[in-house]
Amino acid sequence: MKIDENKKFLIVGLGLLGGSYAKSLSRQGYSVCAIDTDEESIKYALDNGFISKGSTEVKEEFLQNADIVVFALYPHIFIDWIKQYGDLFKQGTILTDVTGVKGIIVEQIQAMLKPGVEFISAHPMAGKEVSGVKNADDSIFKVANYIVVPTNDNSFNAINICKDLGETLGFKEVSWLSVEDHDRMIAYLSQLTHCIAVSLMCANETPGFERYTGDSFRDLTRIAKINDEMWSELFLANREALLCEMDRYRESFEKLYDFIKNENRDGMREMMRLSTKRRQHFDKKV
Amino acid sequence: MKIDENKKFLIVGLGLLGGSYAKSLSRQGYSVCAIDTDEESIKYALDNGFISKGSTEVKEEFLQNADIVVFALYPHIFIDWIKQYGDLFKQGTILTDVTGVKGIIVEQIQAMLKPGVEFISAHPMAGKEVSGVKNADDSIFKVANYIVVPTNDNSFNAINICKDLGETLGFKEVSWLSVEDHDRMIAYLSQLTHCIAVSLMCANETPGFERYTGDSFRDLTRIAKINDEMWSELFLANREALLCEMDRYRESFEKLYDFIKNENRDGMREMMRLSTKRRQHFDKKV
Repeated sequence: MKIDENKKFLIVGLGLLGGSYAKSLSRQGYSVCAIDTDEESIKYALDNGFISKGSTEVKEEFLQNADIVVFALYPHIFIDWIKQYGDLFKQGTILTDVTGVKGIIVEQIQAMLKPGVEFISAHPMAGKEVSGVKNADDSIFKVANYIVVPTNDNSFNAINICKDLGETLGFKEVSWLSVEDHDRMIAYLSQLTHCIAVSLMCANETPGFERYTGDSFRDLTRIAKINDEMWSELFLANREALLCEMDRYRESFEKLYDFIKNENRDGMREMMRLSTKRRQHFDKKV
Repeated sequence: MKIDENKKFLIVGLGLLGGSYAKSLSRQGYSVCAIDTDEESIKYALDNGFISKGSTEVKEEFLQNADIVVFALYPHIFIDWIKQYGDLFKQGTILTDVTGVKGIIVEQIQAMLKPGVEFISAHPMAGKEVSGVKNADDSIFKVANYIVVPTNDNSFNAINICKDLGETLGFKEVSWLSVEDHDRMIAYLSQLTHCIAVSLMCANETPGFERYTGDSFRDLTRIAKINDEMWSELFLANREALLCEMDRYRESFEKLYDFIKNENRDGMREMMRLSTKRRQHFDKKV
């Protein structure tokens, strides 16, 4: 279901994702305000009609006006922000976010809020290799998953509004996971893949190899172009789950290494057949 | 330059690549014959106009008629074939191939041929995740690199014809490398990436994860769907270079692992900035 057309949005943090949320919601006729410390980002969003009002300072008026607030901040900034301004929201406000890891924030944020203000976490699994509101693009939602990440403290009403937000933004699929399952899934499907891409890109510095690159290498290293500030924080925020997935992956890699070293062709072929079979489940549904 | 329109081709091995060569050359009006042990493949290629004549047996007439012969076989079959039939070619015949590794075949094949029959090796870096002549598709050449891999024993004339073949087939870029450089490059850019994709796909078997997959994981594992018979042979055929690249990659991965384990954010960020910078050289030129 679409979010009620009279609901008023506040976006805190106008980066790529915050900007894309604002763009999509304003296009659909919702009232959208934004707060961001960067004046240029606010100006760009105003000039391009992504928001109707913006401020580089935290204005109480913005907070009091909002029905739904979306936080698109780095985890530690998000936590500091709620500490400082969390009490200023009116009763009944729903807070949500776009943070890529959940364990370190969800319960902490929920515990800081006064009764009547509810945080329901979400992870829109959309992105680009570029950042900032100038690259905002709401078409990235169409092909992406949106995951609601509730806890036992969430009301059904808030979970439902959060789901509706995913549908309003036009995500391909909306589903839900527990905090723990979410962080394990992210460690394997997203963080480990970024670790691999970075490691592969750093492993060999022969100049001129780029001339011979085929699509395989290009696909594997696309995400080696990485926002180091954000990803290093997210890796550490999910450190245990990530190290666990890195261990499992390393074990798998070493197994293949030994098969090659020992010229064990049957072992190699068995792994390849397993990977071929498993990969079929991950094909895009057309 | 395009190959002279009167040259007659023989393709030995009508798989995905052999079939795509045949399709492209026949479309352009060249005379193309083919030999393949599989009757269905020959029939399909005849029915679809990829070849004008085909045989499941090695016919002397086919070999005597050919000016340019393309071998699209597994390495060990290629070597056996030349051993058995290499003497049947007429003087002046140019042999070439599509083999993905060069060290184990090029000099060996060259040494087996009689004077006046010359083998000039090439590696068309094109492919698909499906195999067989039924998936032949000459549009894969447009975005791919074609590498001529000469030795000191090759004549300029043969190198030139081999280059012209790459241009005739419509490859995006035609270049050349020594046997040794080629195999090192392939170990890093292609074989290592396939090892990584297979290992990643085999590392975690949680059912249902596919539901949450974003493009990163999908891109990294596209090539985990792999022809185990072909790739296990190619890995072993380039074993030393591949193990060397796997060692370098492992070192890089372990470095990142330790940074995460020790919460060394500066170390992580430095690697990420390096990977971001290096990856830019690999962007597709539009």
